[in-house]
Amino acid sequence: MSFRPSKYFPILEWGREYRRETLINDLIAAVIVTIMLIPQSLAYAMLAGLPPQVGLYASILPLVAYAVFGTSRTLAVGPVAILSLMTAAAAGKIAAQGSDAYIQAAVILALLSGAILFILGIFRMGFLANFLSHPVISGFITASGIIIAASQLKHILGIDAGGHNLFEILVELGRHIGETNIPTLIIGVASLAFLFSARKYLKPMLRGIGLSEKAATIATRTGPVFAVVASILAVALLRLDEDGVRILHDVPRNLPAIGLPAFDHDIWLQLLGSAALISLIGFVESVSVAQTLAAKRRQRVDPNQELIGLGAASMSAGISSGYPVTGGLARSAVNFDAGAETPAAGAFTAVGIALATLFLTPYLYFLPQAVLAATIIVAVLSLVDLKAIRQVWAYSRSDFAAMAATIIVTLFSGVELGVTIGVALSLFLHLYNTSRPHFALVGQVPGTHHFRNVNRHEVVTSDKVLTIRIDESLYFANARFLEDTVYCVLGNRPDLKHLILMCPAVNRIDASGLESLEAINQRLKEAGVTLHLSEVKGPVMDRLKRTHFLEELTGKVYLHQYEAIQDLDTDCARSAFEKSAPTTMPADSPCPSQKLAGLDPQR
Amino acid sequence: MSFRPSKYFPILEWGREYRRETLINDLIAAVIVTIMLIPQSLAYAMLAGLPPQVGLYASILPLVAYAVFGTSRTLAVGPVAILSLMTAAAAGKIAAQGSDAYIQAAVILALLSGAILFILGIFRMGFLANFLSHPVISGFITASGIIIAASQLKHILGIDAGGHNLFEILVELGRHIGETNIPTLIIGVASLAFLFSARKYLKPMLRGIGLSEKAATIATRTGPVFAVVASILAVALLRLDEDGVRILHDVPRNLPAIGLPAFDHDIWLQLLGSAALISLIGFVESVSVAQTLAAKRRQRVDPNQELIGLGAASMSAGISSGYPVTGGLARSAVNFDAGAETPAAGAFTAVGIALATLFLTPYLYFLPQAVLAATIIVAVLSLVDLKAIRQVWAYSRSDFAAMAATIIVTLFSGVELGVTIGVALSLFLHLYNTSRPHFALVGQVPGTHHFRNVNRHEVVTSDKVLTIRIDESLYFANARFLEDTVYCVLGNRPDLKHLILMCPAVNRIDASGLESLEAINQRLKEAGVTLHLSEVKGPVMDRLKRTHFLEELTGKVYLHQYEAIQDLDTDCARSAFEKSAPTTMPADSPCPSQKLAGLDPQR
Repeated sequence: MSFRPSKYFPILEWGREYRRETLINDLIAAVIVTIMLIPQSLAYAMLAGLPPQVGLYASILPLVAYAVFGTSRTLAVGPVAILSLMTAAAAGKIAAQGSDAYIQAAVILALLSGAILFILGIFRMGFLANFLSHPVISGFITASGIIIAASQLKHILGIDAGGHNLFEILVELGRHIGETNIPTLIIGVASLAFLFSARKYLKPMLRGIGLSEKAATIATRTGPVFAVVASILAVALLRLDEDGVRILHDVPRNLPAIGLPAFDHDIWLQLLGSAALISLIGFVESVSVAQTLAAKRRQRVDPNQELIGLGAASMSAGISSGYPVTGGLARSAVNFDAGAETPAAGAFTAVGIALATLFLTPYLYFLPQAVLAATIIVAVLSLVDLKAIRQVWAYSRSDFAAMAATIIVTLFSGVELGVTIGVALSLFLHLYNTSRPHFALVGQVPGTHHFRNVNRHEVVTSDKVLTIRIDESLYFANARFLEDTVYCVLGNRPDLKHLILMCPAVNRIDASGLESLEAINQRLKEAGVTLHLSEVKGPVMDRLKRTHFLEELTGKVYLHQYEAIQDLDTDCARSAFEKSAPTTMPADSPCPSQKLAGLDPQR
Repeated sequence: MSFRPSKYFPILEWGREYRRETLINDLIAAVIVTIMLIPQSLAYAMLAGLPPQVGLYASILPLVAYAVFGTSRTLAVGPVAILSLMTAAAAGKIAAQGSDAYIQAAVILALLSGAILFILGIFRMGFLANFLSHPVISGFITASGIIIAASQLKHILGIDAGGHNLFEILVELGRHIGETNIPTLIIGVASLAFLFSARKYLKPMLRGIGLSEKAATIATRTGPVFAVVASILAVALLRLDEDGVRILHDVPRNLPAIGLPAFDHDIWLQLLGSAALISLIGFVESVSVAQTLAAKRRQRVDPNQELIGLGAASMSAGISSGYPVTGGLARSAVNFDAGAETPAAGAFTAVGIALATLFLTPYLYFLPQAVLAATIIVAVLSLVDLKAIRQVWAYSRSDFAAMAATIIVTLFSGVELGVTIGVALSLFLHLYNTSRPHFALVGQVPGTHHFRNVNRHEVVTSDKVLTIRIDESLYFANARFLEDTVYCVLGNRPDLKHLILMCPAVNRIDASGLESLEAINQRLKEAGVTLHLSEVKGPVMDRLKRTHFLEELTGKVYLHQYEAIQDLDTDCARSAFEKSAPTTMPADSPCPSQKLAGLDPQR
């Protein structure tokens, strides 16, 4: 395989075709995204417990890095709500909010999570993200959204309150609610009301007065900017800060210093686990946004190259006093709707944010924190998806269990434990389910070559020939279960001469499965029963041919089940299977599978 | 379900049918096993770093407990080599060998591991043992056998040497080899030579002089007893102990005190992980021995009740100054061959060991440690199975990787880490393999109703209808992989009108898989391609019916693939598929599956 630089530097591909009209479209999108990003960056920095300028810093260099390495044409990277929450949780374990060590920890998290993503990308290990199931991700995002919204209520009320999980946050709010600052509350509630109704009613209204669909969407998305401007004017004119309304105050007017944080082996090691979780969650969030947008324009994103792009972005945040970043849904959607065509739009946005940092921040002096909190609340509540919980409950109890565990642990213990438990439980339940596979006794559908489950169809079976269809790959976790099942059947069928294991759904047989087949073959031989296989798949057969099993097998391997029955059942009396014969088995029969009722002719 | 006491107390079942001839057979077996167990119990206590009487104590009460609760008729429980090694590793983390705290730790390990087994049994969680794959167990036993044998060499040489892993043990032996005690070495080597040749030549010889197969087998197994007697006589008569031969000295002549060790929260917690591993390994070892023996007499063991029986046995060891026990291969085989018919034989053996503890130990005063070491070495080297390593290598690289990791980590780091890494790696590799499933493009075998992989068979396909057979259950780890595959195919087949996903091997679709199917359906709809499913299994279909997917599906669900083709391919020109058309795809095509060559008509 030849080395193509454009594979690792997608900029070389789209850069070649860059035209004047592309430039104009990208510039327009950049201006719109910049305006939207300024309050969002400040708000997410506040959520992460960091000084406001850190949010701006995280929206400059990372955008340039992603423009060079990323594969999505329209993804906008920067601070996002969930990574801000996770950063606060991780840095909070190292130092108190507001301390230099805390800020330092956030920078280290950006470097570490970026390096992890980058390395995974180099080794093409994007598949690791697949081990986060949809219900776990969905549950995690919903729970995080609820926690984030709850944590911002203190800013709406204008009180001091702590708490690391939902329970603590609510208790703290209850304890301090008497200290509520009325002017702050008015600003906060007004902002919330404006932002929620803007989401709901502004777009239809703007469409009503003649704006295009696209323009209306963009105007609605930039709603927070109006809230920001209006609230700054209100506070500045009425000097509400003197009445206790907390404001942004001075934001340092310089660009981020470039450099690496001090290397303290212990702290870096302590943050490594959190950084791994941040990188995983950030990657999953970003890739799903990127894929959704790419699909709309028939473009593709390469998950492994995305790891490199997002890794480069977070590492750039780390060397420029920022904190972990990833591709965000809201900003990417705005970028997309505003007509961005290439990642250059991201680079232009970075220039916009840099200019804003230098020249705009003095005008944000009077910006009330309550307005930032309101923008966060409105943004994260759109992530809460309670309908998904109901749907998963209806579809699969296993998936629901993993989702519920993720939500409950995230809400009441913390984000890191929540996602870890969710992933572990979903993996365990998957393994548990495949360790007790479905086996079906099958018979021939009269007059056809088809064989079906005796419990679901009217089929013909024989006393001398029994066919068990194995509905799972055979591997270590279920190999013994198959043995137990076969031995149980054997004990209940004294007349049996031939046992056929029908394998159309056996996609893989590992070494443990092979040993179980060998043991079954041996045991049946001693009992005078011949073992046959039918409909073994090509790749499975290839592998069995490398062993002695096929030589030791007492019976044959048939390509089709029909051939097997034709061959074996000639001298056997055939009898219609009694689908609902009365059961005479003891209630605690040793048969391991509850679904094997049909395997016992006495039932 | 009614409560049957005999289910939880198997003694009630076999006790009812207990007859005079059963009693005689059980008594004979008990005498033979007692004679064999005395040196073995002493030897394994030495291996565990415990005083000799602890080995005897662990062979009294646990046997009675297993007789009451166990389901195997012939399993003999007691100290075994691998659990002795694991006990030494775990207790060694708490205190130095020889200290009271070390002995105490061994007792706590017995209680904890017994309690874990008992609780797992109550909750019928025997399936957990299935997560230890055959190659991991086999590799672990082989590596443990090698370490144990190496650790006993110091006793053969009569030197002091430490070391916790193979590397350290060999280095220590090298450092101290100059201190070798010649009389000890002579005794050790003579014992080894005698025991190895007894294994190999004694049985044929005894058969030659007219003994029955059974008698010859038993006499061979009790070989260590002869070595013990001969070496005691030699040391006592020649007073070799005065020449530096280490002997057993006095063994306390009392029965074990019954009682619980002091409860120190920290130490119990520290030992919990080790106890869990000990219980798991002990259970797996014991159940496989019990099942092998039961199969020979057409009896059954119930794994969940075995958990209770082994749990009760280890807990009894814990309250009677013993250490973790389980069913051992060698002693169970002797018990079986000696004609034991019921667990009563175990209870009689317990009486025999108790009598030996009270009256026989003075005669063991001069027993050289080198002879005990020799019996251990001979016993464990029979566990080393290098052939299995070759076989697994030939059959499956994944299984081999897990096995090799288990062996290497066990040998060079330790037993606990070894088995943990082995289990984790085998689970990960299983998940990894199922996360990149095999997909096959299928076509119709001319003149039949069968559909086969285009890369393996000469089949007929169509330009307008494409069928992909999914050879794996759809779950979170491979859901995205399916999406990527379908989108890739879509990009390469501009004329496509219908896509059929053929699902005879899809045993399960979880919520993530469902979301991917929904996404595929939506995406194909936008591209003007209709999505169909065929040969969906009953249980999968039942579940899909609980969702809106079947309503949203643009196409149909066909019971048979043949029907689907009959229905969809009427107006489409059918073309024979070119099996080996030249490839014009770029080398780094975005198609995720290497095996999907056939999916692209240009190839």
